[in-house]
Amino acid sequence: MTQPDALLDVAYDEALRGLAEGGVPIGAALFDVDGALLGRGHNRRVQNDDPSVHAETDAFRAAGRRRDYRPTIMVTTLSPCWYCSGLVRQFGIGTVIIGEAQTFHGGHDWLAEHGVKVLVLDDPRCVSLMTDFIAERPDLWFEDIGVAPTKQTPA
Amino acid sequence: MTQPDALLDVAYDEALRGLAEGGVPIGAALFDVDGALLGRGHNRRVQNDDPSVHAETDAFRAAGRRRDYRPTIMVTTLSPCWYCSGLVRQFGIGTVIIGEAQTFHGGHDWLAEHGVKVLVLDDPRCVSLMTDFIAERPDLWFEDIGVAPTKQTPA
Repeated sequence: MTQPDALLDVAYDEALRGLAEGGVPIGAALFDVDGALLGRGHNRRVQNDDPSVHAETDAFRAAGRRRDYRPTIMVTTLSPCWYCSGLVRQFGIGTVIIGEAQTFHGGHDWLAEHGVKVLVLDDPRCVSLMTDFIAERPDLWFEDIGVAPTKQTPA
Repeated sequence: MTQPDALLDVAYDEALRGLAEGGVPIGAALFDVDGALLGRGHNRRVQNDDPSVHAETDAFRAAGRRRDYRPTIMVTTLSPCWYCSGLVRQFGIGTVIIGEAQTFHGGHDWLAEHGVKVLVLDDPRCVSLMTDFIAERPDLWFEDIGVAPTKQTPA
């Protein structure tokens, strides 16, 4: 497999693009097992006014229609939420490489339990990017992961 | 709650639209708890050449950005796959109404285990629609749920 860090660089670059556009800074990319890029993308909630486009969804869409995802690798800057973990499981994506799972712990343990090869890189750039974003825009972050407003998570 | 059958009619109508367009005939709609329509849609794999748009995703997208999905109802003609079940769980959609779960058994038991109110209607129109589609286009059906080609599921 191509060096995981090199694959993560592509997803991280997508996250930075999202940040520059005023969006949620999460990026992803789908590669084949040889490291060839199939599709890349980032969260587009703000940019497209579309709650359905998480980073992984965007990369998956960009890769187009395929008949076999088993030899593919989903790389994402952040632990995939249930929506994106469900995508990985349903389509049988074989490997998931995750930048960090400190600021958000999604469904990657569940994926590992169901046979997906999961690698968490603990990348400090990714941790820093999300830490800063969550501190700055908690409203947008909680919206993006479906946490309804409460006293702890204001609108 | 508005009669579940009346809500399913909207999703079924979406499935028929998808069929008429040459697509995968699965429809969905998101309602608020009072039965007001928030968004409706159908699978667009073929029409948009987009593997990321399942019926539930399309209805969710059509409903726009929201801060609280707990009082919403996702209605779908078919048991939601892991991708769409993940959507429901992540965004905390409170209720899922399912036309049928005979031709495909997705993640609705998992959703029920995690506190989602799940209602399966065993609607014969929905069963018939999917039975016919799967018999006619097994290639497209297996592609849509991420089952790679084998001797049993030809490309």
